[in-house]
Amino acid sequence: MTDGILTPDQILTAAQDVLRRYGPAKATVVDVARALGVSHGSVYRHFPSKAALREAVTQRWLDESHTLLTAVMAADGPADVRLRAWLSALFAAKRKKALGDPELFATYTVLVGEASQVIERHIADLVGQLQQIITTGLAKGELVTSDPAATARAVFDATIRFHDPVHAADWDQPGIEDAFDTLCTLIWLGLSPR
Amino acid sequence: MTDGILTPDQILTAAQDVLRRYGPAKATVVDVARALGVSHGSVYRHFPSKAALREAVTQRWLDESHTLLTAVMAADGPADVRLRAWLSALFAAKRKKALGDPELFATYTVLVGEASQVIERHIADLVGQLQQIITTGLAKGELVTSDPAATARAVFDATIRFHDPVHAADWDQPGIEDAFDTLCTLIWLGLSPR
Repeated sequence: MTDGILTPDQILTAAQDVLRRYGPAKATVVDVARALGVSHGSVYRHFPSKAALREAVTQRWLDESHTLLTAVMAADGPADVRLRAWLSALFAAKRKKALGDPELFATYTVLVGEASQVIERHIADLVGQLQQIITTGLAKGELVTSDPAATARAVFDATIRFHDPVHAADWDQPGIEDAFDTLCTLIWLGLSPR
Repeated sequence: MTDGILTPDQILTAAQDVLRRYGPAKATVVDVARALGVSHGSVYRHFPSKAALREAVTQRWLDESHTLLTAVMAADGPADVRLRAWLSALFAAKRKKALGDPELFATYTVLVGEASQVIERHIADLVGQLQQIITTGLAKGELVTSDPAATARAVFDATIRFHDPVHAADWDQPGIEDAFDTLCTLIWLGLSPR
């Protein structure tokens, strides 16, 4: 492969393969360069350090759940429908990652543990989307809150069992869908006008 | 020490000391017996196996949070006050354990991971107490739900960030009390009659 056509996304894909193959403790930038057939200098041209590369690959993995969420954000509709669709999309995306490829999920769990700023930004993004749904619903009189930002965080916290990877072991347990539905209903009742 | 006065509680206290000193991977029944100055047979008379002893010591540790909760359960009052008092007492008890003695907390986190039946029973107990508060409030017309058991579980799930040890690292973060308060308010609004 010539360096001319090397894109950041190709590097991230190769880095993910290398991380999966060698594990987060052993994977190096040289391994990534070798997998791409380029010099490690070519990798460093896009990512200035091993830490930067690991953060970027973690960021991309976290953002994968955003595709579904972006679709929900783009769609119109009543706040209760949008809120539940958003929470369901997040749960579905996280669950798919955890149960669909447990080995890669375990790898990323290690990486996420190292990348506190990346995860903080990820959570801030997600809470921001919730806040947008809440603010739109508030303007339309579909829900009530005196503090949309704090309420968005409370909704995020309230559903943590259904999106935080530390709870992944629960996600294929019987009754988990019902538990999620009951919780979503309780949250909506907490927001809706009386 | 003579065997005649050896109580299960003394054994559990000694077992906790031994676990703290040697760590859960290395601690043995012989270590516990030695710490008590008795034969290991004397320990086995009360706890038929090492696993049974470890489960009992885990159970006792988990039940320590129940003292505060029992006081809340015994007190009369409106459902919103009782619910918030109960959730606060649980959060306070868990936080005290996690932050007050982090080393012992880490030891018990390992033990809890081994003792799935003990932890299931513990959670069932806690959800049962929530259900009692909800059922009493329902009878007095203070709250609304069509399924007190499912709602109790939803309240437990909704507050998981504030009682599950996997989230202990958040418990001394700034703003955690406000986040807890906002969430409790949201939950209560979800339950209260419209």
